[in-house]
Amino acid sequence: MTVFTYMSFLTDYGLEDGFVAACHGTAARIAPAARIIDITHLVQPGDVRRGAAVLAQTVSYLPPAVHVAVVDPGVGTARRAVAVAAGDSILVGPDNGLLSWAVAALGGGKAAVQLTNGELWLHPVSATFHGRDIFMPVAAHLAAGLELAAAGDEISVADLVALPAPTSRLHDGGAEGEVMSIDRFGNVQLSIPAADVGRLGIGIGSAVVVRCGRRQFTVPYLDTFAAGAPGEIVAFTDSAGLISLAINSGDAAEQLGLPPGAHVRLSAVPTS
Amino acid sequence: MTVFTYMSFLTDYGLEDGFVAACHGTAARIAPAARIIDITHLVQPGDVRRGAAVLAQTVSYLPPAVHVAVVDPGVGTARRAVAVAAGDSILVGPDNGLLSWAVAALGGGKAAVQLTNGELWLHPVSATFHGRDIFMPVAAHLAAGLELAAAGDEISVADLVALPAPTSRLHDGGAEGEVMSIDRFGNVQLSIPAADVGRLGIGIGSAVVVRCGRRQFTVPYLDTFAAGAPGEIVAFTDSAGLISLAINSGDAAEQLGLPPGAHVRLSAVPTS
Amino acid sequence: MTVFTYMSFLTDYGLEDGFVAACHGTAARIAPAARIIDITHLVQPGDVRRGAAVLAQTVSYLPPAVHVAVVDPGVGTARRAVAVAAGDSILVGPDNGLLSWAVAALGGGKAAVQLTNGELWLHPVSATFHGRDIFMPVAAHLAAGLELAAAGDEISVADLVALPAPTSRLHDGGAEGEVMSIDRFGNVQLSIPAADVGRLGIGIGSAVVVRCGRRQFTVPYLDTFAAGAPGEIVAFTDSAGLISLAINSGDAAEQLGLPPGAHVRLSAVPTS
Repeated sequence: MTVFTYMSFLTDYGLEDGFVAACHGTAARIAPAARIIDITHLVQPGDVRRGAAVLAQTVSYLPPAVHVAVVDPGVGTARRAVAVAAGDSILVGPDNGLLSWAVAALGGGKAAVQLTNGELWLHPVSATFHGRDIFMPVAAHLAAGLELAAAGDEISVADLVALPAPTSRLHDGGAEGEVMSIDRFGNVQLSIPAADVGRLGIGIGSAVVVRCGRRQFTVPYLDTFAAGAPGEIVAFTDSAGLISLAINSGDAAEQLGLPPGAHVRLSAVPTS
Repeated sequence: MTVFTYMSFLTDYGLEDGFVAACHGTAARIAPAARIIDITHLVQPGDVRRGAAVLAQTVSYLPPAVHVAVVDPGVGTARRAVAVAAGDSILVGPDNGLLSWAVAALGGGKAAVQLTNGELWLHPVSATFHGRDIFMPVAAHLAAGLELAAAGDEISVADLVALPAPTSRLHDGGAEGEVMSIDRFGNVQLSIPAADVGRLGIGIGSAVVVRCGRRQFTVPYLDTFAAGAPGEIVAFTDSAGLISLAINSGDAAEQLGLPPGAHVRLSAVPTS
Repeated sequence: MTVFTYMSFLTDYGLEDGFVAACHGTAARIAPAARIIDITHLVQPGDVRRGAAVLAQTVSYLPPAVHVAVVDPGVGTARRAVAVAAGDSILVGPDNGLLSWAVAALGGGKAAVQLTNGELWLHPVSATFHGRDIFMPVAAHLAAGLELAAAGDEISVADLVALPAPTSRLHDGGAEGEVMSIDRFGNVQLSIPAADVGRLGIGIGSAVVVRCGRRQFTVPYLDTFAAGAPGEIVAFTDSAGLISLAINSGDAAEQLGLPPGAHVRLSAVPTS
């Protein structure tokens, strides 16, 4: 029996209602010793891809935990509710791909169940708030030591819905990717790993040619955005190991007009 | 002596200042073992009715606790500060109606005191921050086991300020109510219980006629908003047991232009 | 050896990403018994002065703790990372002045170290996320009982970067100061202590002449903003002991157009 001291919690519920607290309370009544680390509740409503990215980039820094994630535009429909064992943790949420990148970040799924054991749920189960009525109570029971197999029917890890991985490939002398996310500072995170840029022969101090749509510009690849001059666009390796574009004391996303999903290509400055 | 493991906390303080943390810290110094579940701190400044609704809809899902709520436009004036025992919990806050719906949701008040025992307060008491200086320290003492009677002078539960209950009545073949709240997803929660709609002979799969002002439209009553087609307005029973209007992958409040307090009438489609 | 039950945490990371949670998780893995009180994570990006003000006004209400604050526009550059013992607490953050007002509020620094012991850090250390990789792990080790001296090289408290104190002086029959901050309610906090106004012979019930730029108006000095008539501008002593301007049920900052840093002068009404 594994008892978890920690749970984590990520949703698109926002902070203006009592939704997050109702889930915390439900967990507290089942697993009073568990402590919950809130990852974020400000995922844009229904943005499964964004939720998956934040979860995957955070989960490795958390202690072993039951991670509950609910960005669930299909709540109340036929999509499955699942729990997946990965690394030293268990992930609980809708089977819509939300968990998939985090499962991979934790080393891949080891076992999975569909949450079919209704005895663990909070009744009556509402059609629209499975976070409170299904995911959190099941997760709290798992945190308190319930075996994964007791939460429902075993399913194949290979059958779990997986989001397509963010585009990133080396092609024709360039690294092609997309905008993964924009953080609060306006930094533009690309899906291109720093390692790929290294394979192009671009190192700290080099210049990088950035192409997005019809635009092209050249920026320095620096240790950190703070090493740029105020107002200067720079590329750097961010805290997730990905290439990001930033402006020291400025908002790169706004200035570059690069939304999540936008295609970006990086290459070395041609030698002539 | 009852010791509470949990406290809860709801305010309109916002999250940009240190106000919430000063209250957490004050509680921690008095009741270090207590754990605080934050309900929300984003009630619109001074919106007592909204605070009361969120508190009442959340409190049943929390463990027994000392619930502290502060939406207090009359801070520093003659309004009373009170603590009310209800169910297995104690509620602490200003006597302006904020607590009243939650007291009812917990089964009604069993005893109440006006917070007159100044020895429990944080001195000097500021005129404008009673959350930090009165409500939270008293609540923390109660969580640590202080008897309710020791917090002040007993008052009659019947004398507590109560907000008028949200309008909802069956009348002339229709259910009349008002918009209770808009959540982050743009779902429009009405004050009309699902049970009332059932009494009109409207069941899942039926069509519902919605009237608000001069407008009238007919929507399906479905299990959940996710069962609607994208862009379709639907009625459903929400997680609080109330009828809500929603748009799958859309913002119903924005599209319908229905603010909190707006009058709404639901009826069955006339059979001809 | 001092073990801290509590840590506190203030940043400009925002709540939309997983940054705060990654720091919480890092602390949990090092100091699982420590409890973290979040002060705020909504300091405007890079606004060191605002972060310093919130920290200083909050820290006295928290239990003894390791206080971690990260508003760090110079992350990854040569600015030092430091830990400072003050009162019964330790403050950890960048040496850019962010900690200075809180150190003063806690009675002044008693000892300080530059965080040079890399064995305590999370490796690989990213260039842009020292909250997760340096400040929080070091702070968690300190919370778990590590001696301050073991975190790095001793430095002189007098050499720490200090922000200039907010302007406030008595001059020519008036109290001159600046707008310190605007809270969620639109209250305008001045850098002028209530005690200074008292020295001008202005007491509760007196009228106060407010001058800002070319404008001048006279407002009552009341116990609390709630004592004003709706729509009336009033001066009162706020919960930090400073003079604030407010409008009962209104937004004084918006109506007065007074941004942080604006110069303000208060004086008594001339007797004629």
